[in-house]
Amino acid sequence: MEASTFIRFEDDNGTIRYGEPTKESLAGDLIGATVEVLQGDPFQGLKRSGEKAKVGVVLCPLESTPIVLCIGLNYKKHAEEANLTIAPYPVVFTKPPTALAGPYDDIHVHPDAASMMDYEGELVVVIGRDAKNVSVANALHYVLGYTMGNDVSARNFQLPDVSGGQFCYAKSFDGFAPMGPAIATTKAVSDPQALTYSTRVNGATRQETSTSDMIWTVAQIISHLSRGTTLRKGTTIMTGTPSGE
Amino acid sequence: MEASTFIRFEDDNGTIRYGEPTKESLAGDLIGATVEVLQGDPFQGLKRSGEKAKVGVVLCPLESTPIVLCIGLNYKKHAEEANLTIAPYPVVFTKPPTALAGPYDDIHVHPDAASMMDYEGELVVVIGRDAKNVSVANALHYVLGYTMGNDVSARNFQLPDVSGGQFCYAKSFDGFAPMGPAIATTKAVSDPQALTYSTRVNGATRQETSTSDMIWTVAQIISHLSRGTTLRKGTTIMTGTPSGE
Repeated sequence: MEASTFIRFEDDNGTIRYGEPTKESLAGDLIGATVEVLQGDPFQGLKRSGEKAKVGVVLCPLESTPIVLCIGLNYKKHAEEANLTIAPYPVVFTKPPTALAGPYDDIHVHPDAASMMDYEGELVVVIGRDAKNVSVANALHYVLGYTMGNDVSARNFQLPDVSGGQFCYAKSFDGFAPMGPAIATTKAVSDPQALTYSTRVNGATRQETSTSDMIWTVAQIISHLSRGTTLRKGTTIMTGTPSGE
Repeated sequence: MEASTFIRFEDDNGTIRYGEPTKESLAGDLIGATVEVLQGDPFQGLKRSGEKAKVGVVLCPLESTPIVLCIGLNYKKHAEEANLTIAPYPVVFTKPPTALAGPYDDIHVHPDAASMMDYEGELVVVIGRDAKNVSVANALHYVLGYTMGNDVSARNFQLPDVSGGQFCYAKSFDGFAPMGPAIATTKAVSDPQALTYSTRVNGATRQETSTSDMIWTVAQIISHLSRGTTLRKGTTIMTGTPSGE
């Protein structure tokens, strides 16, 4: 049977495996948890093996990503707070594959980028098979699943006078796209607009939202991004940050 | 002996090969030209085989690229013409790997992107080995070679009101980064700031420049892009478009 939620981890022997966590272990940090080992790969299907293993190190649930596509301003409440005009299409910028990191990895920030570091908790969509010119109605059929990500920014390089207004550089440093720990597949999440999540910094909740507040739905985002452009399987989409400090 | 200039092509049998063109054949479009077949791969080294082959189809000289990094506004004359303020760092945006195309490939433009299509002829730097935190003095040691590229844009998606000011979407469609035909390695090009090139549209010269007019040199660009960020081998850098219409 196929797993509906999976993590990627190192077991006690240092072997990298996929596993299905229990709901209870997902509430914690998963380190030391016992999970069911999964066989196969995320894109062909991960099947329960019956074998159990203990999680040593929690890894990024994806081994790699062709690109991290990011959406700016995508929550109504955030747009109102910031008094911003909503563009007629989603605002798009990118992070390179080298920005991908595990959810608990240390991020080694270059000293030149350290003065104005910032986080943004976001719902991340993982594309499951190549998608091009996909309609809004069909878009969710191309989704493997969902995870959480942090759109890390070095704001000192994002200031308009410094960046020429382009966001990419400030957000593209190694490790600036941590994701995970789990990917919930479309078997677990049928409606990505009916999720709630929160962002905590050192234990304090800073952002809390329902995805029903999104300006552009996940389906609309995929359709827009796939217009004339092939989204390769494994492409990750950070869907924008909600209101909050 | 290693080749100083190479192309990638299909021979008359449809086999994909690397070849070293003569100076004379490079002045033309290379189709039907006889080249010396090269063995190996661009990153380990391409060696002359003594065998000759006829070019059937000219391909992109790179089979793939991890990402296309692009520099905005990088020619002094262009900046003066447009009356633009020069930012303290290069302005950076990206194209995804799927934008890569051969120099003579047709670009199938999505109807929604067709109304304001534009070209920009640019010098392209190809990174030869992984580079991170590289100094300006050492930067050129990480270069495999140079080629020419067209930073294709769908300007209707680049208008500030439509894009939210971000360039990526308008420049990321499939095939919007054609490059080639040849890569001139660092053996052929010792100083990337002493090159001249021109852009012709239907035979008419529209852009013509010396790379000595660049605001940010190739070495400065590599050093900046590699700050805290790993540039994977095969990464391509479009270094900005010169003045002209």
